[in-house]
Amino acid sequence: MTSAAQPAAGQPGDRRSCSTALLTDQYELTMLDSALRDGTGHRRCAFEVFTRRLPEGRRYGVAGGVQRVLDAVAEFRFGEDELRALSGTLDDATLDWLREYRFTGHIDGYPEGELFFPGSPLLTVRATFAEAVVLETLVLSILNHDSAIAGAASRMVSAGNGRRLIEMGSRRTHEKAAVAAARVAYLAGFAATSNLEAGRRYGIPTAGTAAHAFTLLHDDERDAFRAQIDALGTGTTLLVDTYDITRGIERAIEVGGTGLGAVRIDSGDVGVLARQAREQLDSLGATGTKIVVSGDLDEHAIAALRAEPVDGYGVGTSLVTGSGAPTAELVYKLVEVEGRPVAKRSSRKESRGGRKSAVRRHKETGTAVEEEVFGIRAGSAEPVLGPHDRFMQIPLVRDGAQVDGLPGLEDSRQRLRHALVTLPWEGLKLSRGEPAIPTSFAQS
Amino acid sequence: MTSAAQPAAGQPGDRRSCSTALLTDQYELTMLDSALRDGTGHRRCAFEVFTRRLPEGRRYGVAGGVQRVLDAVAEFRFGEDELRALSGTLDDATLDWLREYRFTGHIDGYPEGELFFPGSPLLTVRATFAEAVVLETLVLSILNHDSAIAGAASRMVSAGNGRRLIEMGSRRTHEKAAVAAARVAYLAGFAATSNLEAGRRYGIPTAGTAAHAFTLLHDDERDAFRAQIDALGTGTTLLVDTYDITRGIERAIEVGGTGLGAVRIDSGDVGVLARQAREQLDSLGATGTKIVVSGDLDEHAIAALRAEPVDGYGVGTSLVTGSGAPTAELVYKLVEVEGRPVAKRSSRKESRGGRKSAVRRHKETGTAVEEEVFGIRAGSAEPVLGPHDRFMQIPLVRDGAQVDGLPGLEDSRQRLRHALVTLPWEGLKLSRGEPAIPTSFAQS
Repeated sequence: MTSAAQPAAGQPGDRRSCSTALLTDQYELTMLDSALRDGTGHRRCAFEVFTRRLPEGRRYGVAGGVQRVLDAVAEFRFGEDELRALSGTLDDATLDWLREYRFTGHIDGYPEGELFFPGSPLLTVRATFAEAVVLETLVLSILNHDSAIAGAASRMVSAGNGRRLIEMGSRRTHEKAAVAAARVAYLAGFAATSNLEAGRRYGIPTAGTAAHAFTLLHDDERDAFRAQIDALGTGTTLLVDTYDITRGIERAIEVGGTGLGAVRIDSGDVGVLARQAREQLDSLGATGTKIVVSGDLDEHAIAALRAEPVDGYGVGTSLVTGSGAPTAELVYKLVEVEGRPVAKRSSRKESRGGRKSAVRRHKETGTAVEEEVFGIRAGSAEPVLGPHDRFMQIPLVRDGAQVDGLPGLEDSRQRLRHALVTLPWEGLKLSRGEPAIPTSFAQS
Repeated sequence: MTSAAQPAAGQPGDRRSCSTALLTDQYELTMLDSALRDGTGHRRCAFEVFTRRLPEGRRYGVAGGVQRVLDAVAEFRFGEDELRALSGTLDDATLDWLREYRFTGHIDGYPEGELFFPGSPLLTVRATFAEAVVLETLVLSILNHDSAIAGAASRMVSAGNGRRLIEMGSRRTHEKAAVAAARVAYLAGFAATSNLEAGRRYGIPTAGTAAHAFTLLHDDERDAFRAQIDALGTGTTLLVDTYDITRGIERAIEVGGTGLGAVRIDSGDVGVLARQAREQLDSLGATGTKIVVSGDLDEHAIAALRAEPVDGYGVGTSLVTGSGAPTAELVYKLVEVEGRPVAKRSSRKESRGGRKSAVRRHKETGTAVEEEVFGIRAGSAEPVLGPHDRFMQIPLVRDGAQVDGLPGLEDSRQRLRHALVTLPWEGLKLSRGEPAIPTSFAQS
């Protein structure tokens, strides 16, 4: 191993920088340029992140990526590399302004793991126009991706009904998106991920044993099983469907003994196969050996397997692609300029102007009944809370600094679990339907 | 701007490393660990990337991300940070092996921008099992994402029928996936991207002027238009649908003059609106002012606008989500061990063993008729080429080093354009159908 691959001459190298500043649409910087020239860039503004609709038929959204947004905003700095890339497009004065850029405004939002609905003010950014407009793309990229995956993952966890789910979709999505997807899958209640970078970066439990290639590499299936058990112990999971599942299970117990951790089935009609595998394992005395299934599972397939003797699911493609809804369709809209509400007016895509927050109303039983969105104006009174109601936004950033004690990933995981319990039961149905609770817009 | 946001205490920081080594599923390293122990890790293997099927109804695939794979393989190194993250899971001997890891094998594949079909051997990696197995996830993540977006983008370019397409989907996908998506959109024939990082990293033309927020920021639409023209000149594109489109166009020409570059319409029934806008612009004397439309466009919407006076399209969500097919479903399968073909046998997901390559057969007119996949064995003869036939794989990496003179992004863009011309005309239809040409598997 002496000769290393090098980018071919003439290929732009895949340069990476820790700065997030160019993960941005050009128009944000051309707007900035114009607004700094004519002075409007210094007007105090509020931008709001919300969705006009949930993905078709979905009953709730899950706020995913909030902490990633805050970290990305902190890393939103223009170094000399970034400024050089922009020097043809922008004024020198604008470049100087960007060189000094630090976000100094306020951010309020739904804590990560919270449910949201159409119109929920998921995130509110208050700053000068100049400071806030440049964050649009980055904020939306993170929230749209992470919330889409979190929403799909949450339905899978509900469908799994307490059984163990492992995220293994990295290979079916962009290599960096995979890391973020693993993070929100865990947030949504998945037990572990196959993605090692997610393990390192976010401290998520990782899992994984062997693929068909490992069996095919060996001259005999038993050799492969033996090698795996030598390395990982008898608690490991053996993949038994490379050649013939019945023979595979027989050999797995022959090699691993009746204390074998689990077998995995990755193809075929996994429900039927799981039942047969359970009978075979029991008849061999391996009553404690678990059955893990994988291969093109989505929330509906997981639900359909509820009655089968399956102990765990490996979920890949459908998770990392949002199970039919790969983006959350969140938008980042200017809603207030110098205290004055503003909104686009030309079409059905109408927006409600003014800075807003929300209360989630609950029955006495604790069941949620309504998302009440209300305007925040100087001098106007806040809504009165019932005993089970709560304000949805929390302060996330003040004067550019992250608020102390923000919820961590484990907190967010708990939050989602609790929030789902408050939904009316129809809200957890997998079938297509209306949002679990309606959104009302309070007159102010 | 003095106080900068900092990750909250106790939050795992979003550490970034140039190493791609942990963008990997855990099982690759547990397989490695076991295979190094029992000696099978040193067996010479061939892994093949292919798809069993195209996304439903699609007629061809586009090889996207090949150069990104080669660069990522070159950066696949385990530094002390990566090794520390793995130290609980793996043998010390395995960690030592990883510390020295450099890919030293061979990679052959379809050049980027080439079409592929079910069974096409898109990429073949030859190395020891140990060296090749660890690349599985990274190779697939890149190819699955980039090829999915490239395939969708290519259909949009066909639908656009020569009109200018601008990629503006960054906000609807993971922030790093957005950069890769912009790259393959350009590969597929898009004229420009809104994504600044893609501009910097890959030299792609960037575009973008202003959003509704910029108009709302100003007290009067005219002020916004004036500010934009002051900064960007009269060749710019003014967004005219914030309040009322007819008034917006009137003001745009009032401020920008009849030499205004373009107006953009982002909402409503853009076909009807484009026709009205054209009439209005012409009646104002702005006959050279172009019309750009955006807002929830996909390949079908673009095709439906062919008869309308639209000069350019801004495409977002549907592009970066693969227009219904967010992943290409490519797999990375072990096909050969020490010269012996291997294949999984237990289900319908059958694979063909043995290292393979392909010839694309063409009629005398140059129209493609068949993808002929053939086995490569020592001593077996290569297929005979007709005058218009060609071998599909090219050498990409030899002894770990990228082959000199690999096609760059512009070359790949040309390649795709030419390849599409060779398809039977039904192959370019947007409607659901069979692959444009059948794949045959030659007996060897």
